[in-house]
Amino acid sequence: MGGIVKQLAVLGSTGSIGQQTLQVVRALPHRFRIVGLSAGKNVDLLTKQISEFRPKFIYYQDKEAQARLTSGEYELLSPEDIARHPQVDIVVIATPGKSGLSPTLAAVKAGKNVALANKESLVMAGEIITNEANLSGVQILPVDSEHSAIWQCLKGETQPPVQLMLTASGGPFLHYSPAQLNRVTVKQALKHPSWQMGRKVTIDSATLMNKGFEVIEARWLFNMAFENIKVLIHPQSIIHSMVEFADGSTKAQLSYPDMRIPIQYALSYPERLPNPQLSRLNWSHISSLTFELPDLDTFPCLKLAVEVGKKGGTYPAVLCGADEVAVELFLSQRIKFTDIAHLVEQALEQHQAIPHPSLDDILAADRWARQKVTELTSGDNPW
Amino acid sequence: MGGIVKQLAVLGSTGSIGQQTLQVVRALPHRFRIVGLSAGKNVDLLTKQISEFRPKFIYYQDKEAQARLTSGEYELLSPEDIARHPQVDIVVIATPGKSGLSPTLAAVKAGKNVALANKESLVMAGEIITNEANLSGVQILPVDSEHSAIWQCLKGETQPPVQLMLTASGGPFLHYSPAQLNRVTVKQALKHPSWQMGRKVTIDSATLMNKGFEVIEARWLFNMAFENIKVLIHPQSIIHSMVEFADGSTKAQLSYPDMRIPIQYALSYPERLPNPQLSRLNWSHISSLTFELPDLDTFPCLKLAVEVGKKGGTYPAVLCGADEVAVELFLSQRIKFTDIAHLVEQALEQHQAIPHPSLDDILAADRWARQKVTELTSGDNPW
Repeated sequence: MGGIVKQLAVLGSTGSIGQQTLQVVRALPHRFRIVGLSAGKNVDLLTKQISEFRPKFIYYQDKEAQARLTSGEYELLSPEDIARHPQVDIVVIATPGKSGLSPTLAAVKAGKNVALANKESLVMAGEIITNEANLSGVQILPVDSEHSAIWQCLKGETQPPVQLMLTASGGPFLHYSPAQLNRVTVKQALKHPSWQMGRKVTIDSATLMNKGFEVIEARWLFNMAFENIKVLIHPQSIIHSMVEFADGSTKAQLSYPDMRIPIQYALSYPERLPNPQLSRLNWSHISSLTFELPDLDTFPCLKLAVEVGKKGGTYPAVLCGADEVAVELFLSQRIKFTDIAHLVEQALEQHQAIPHPSLDDILAADRWARQKVTELTSGDNPW
Repeated sequence: MGGIVKQLAVLGSTGSIGQQTLQVVRALPHRFRIVGLSAGKNVDLLTKQISEFRPKFIYYQDKEAQARLTSGEYELLSPEDIARHPQVDIVVIATPGKSGLSPTLAAVKAGKNVALANKESLVMAGEIITNEANLSGVQILPVDSEHSAIWQCLKGETQPPVQLMLTASGGPFLHYSPAQLNRVTVKQALKHPSWQMGRKVTIDSATLMNKGFEVIEARWLFNMAFENIKVLIHPQSIIHSMVEFADGSTKAQLSYPDMRIPIQYALSYPERLPNPQLSRLNWSHISSLTFELPDLDTFPCLKLAVEVGKKGGTYPAVLCGADEVAVELFLSQRIKFTDIAHLVEQALEQHQAIPHPSLDDILAADRWARQKVTELTSGDNPW
């Protein structure tokens, strides 16, 4: 099979999306070559990835461990320098949390197309990143299944859509009452019914905060007013999102829930490549696709996130920072599942927002929010 | 609202598709102008349409009635001359049966884009028409909801799909046993659960012959092997068809069942125009979309049609001709519902096919098939 070989840097290569990106590259070695890898935690896995993919540029967060890595035939660079390196065609941003922001901006400013799996980049700094992308003329290639679905449905359309319908599985606690939700355990919350994901995003899926982040991302990726972005619960996770047009026609993208499909599409765009590892839908096994509106009272994080998205400024940074600490507290069993929303809401209420913030303002708001949640939950503080 | 005004000729303007085409034009008078109309039966309605839309060219099948029409400010032309007239931008072929063939060919040869609602054109003469369209560089704009869905899903895609999934409501007799099917009445057969259509196509939907025709049409419209065109029963008629790509991703087009949506899309392509008369999907009312494989034993017409499509030559013309007479016989209560398939099968078995037929060969095969079914059902012929 012909076609050019695209040179990729994968930032966050040992995480869930990073590993699945490398699976796609492994399946299609004639189309993709890994030139850069970065990781934050798992040095053993990174070492294995280095010996398999032989990248030219490496970053590892822990300086001591990084020192031990230097025996290979690669250069040690910062994530930002990997992201903007002339030998890189596409930067896959698969790092978690706010650590994705700075390499995303570096890549965009250097005119690199970015395959973006990091949610915080657009949620916290959507205005800055999309402005820079427009200035550089680069494309932000969505990796999230929902945004990939919308992007695929918009392919070839000459006019903007009138509405985006983001689908959501509803998570493990769909149809739970507030009282039931109050008692759920970490183990229950980590059992997602349809997707295999990292721990943070799995909890965010259970609270629907993740869907709220995706609404904000969709606003920036597709330049769509919040009023025209809707969320629809679809527990089977077969329809990954839908787009409605002015003529009453709607388009949807479907597949089994497998992140390798949107990852591969972002990398191969505008082409589609056959990959025998990716399952085709088997319609003799799909008898019913169901839909319902989300319960915003029981799952307040979604409503909270959309409100924050509309307000803009540094509020989304507070949303992300507060949520990250609150999820960590829940995972370490120091707060209840339902406390996540309460803590995030408290932080938002106490925040003094800055409109049209700089990157420094955004990072400061994130720090403030983390501190605030820590403060609220330490000692006998009656939050 | 800006945009060019497209000049349309609607052949078969008094039928179901013709009338709905005029509804679209009525809703969007700044974008479409009717320059030609033709009808075969309903002179009263045609007269009304003439006074409302003031076309320049008219055809009416009945010469005596046509003579009475000549008082207006229009020219009387043949359907073929209307189809190839320099003032016409798009020809809507909404005539029923084989009468659509000749104007379709005339339009295509004259380099006109054709909005094709007539099934017989592609089923009987798909090879001839698509060859001519390729020679003239014209586009056949599908009007059928299924083919429009596929066409919309392929928009902007740079590679051919690996599979087409044509959806089918299943008609009024979904889940009927062969014994139940043997006893159904004309009245029952004319009650389609989701679509408002003409009598012939409603019966063809009940036998699934219509879906077989659509498989053959899809083969020509999208240059797809029969092996890669599947039929899926979807009783809600919300997903109008789907397209599967090499990367495991599937795209679907959805709307309420309303023929004005695909008609308008064919006319406005590549644009989509807002039309307040067309309903938007309301997802708070759509709780479930269901799917199942068709029962080819109970509904043999679908299997028959696909086999005939694969064989090619004059067989598809025999399929159409025999089916038309058999449906008429059923509508006049002279045969049973299940006899439709038997009669069509008999005609096909007795046919001496011609490979790569000319238009004359095709029309002769159609005549032969009509005669054969008439013969088989007249007197005490033990068919």
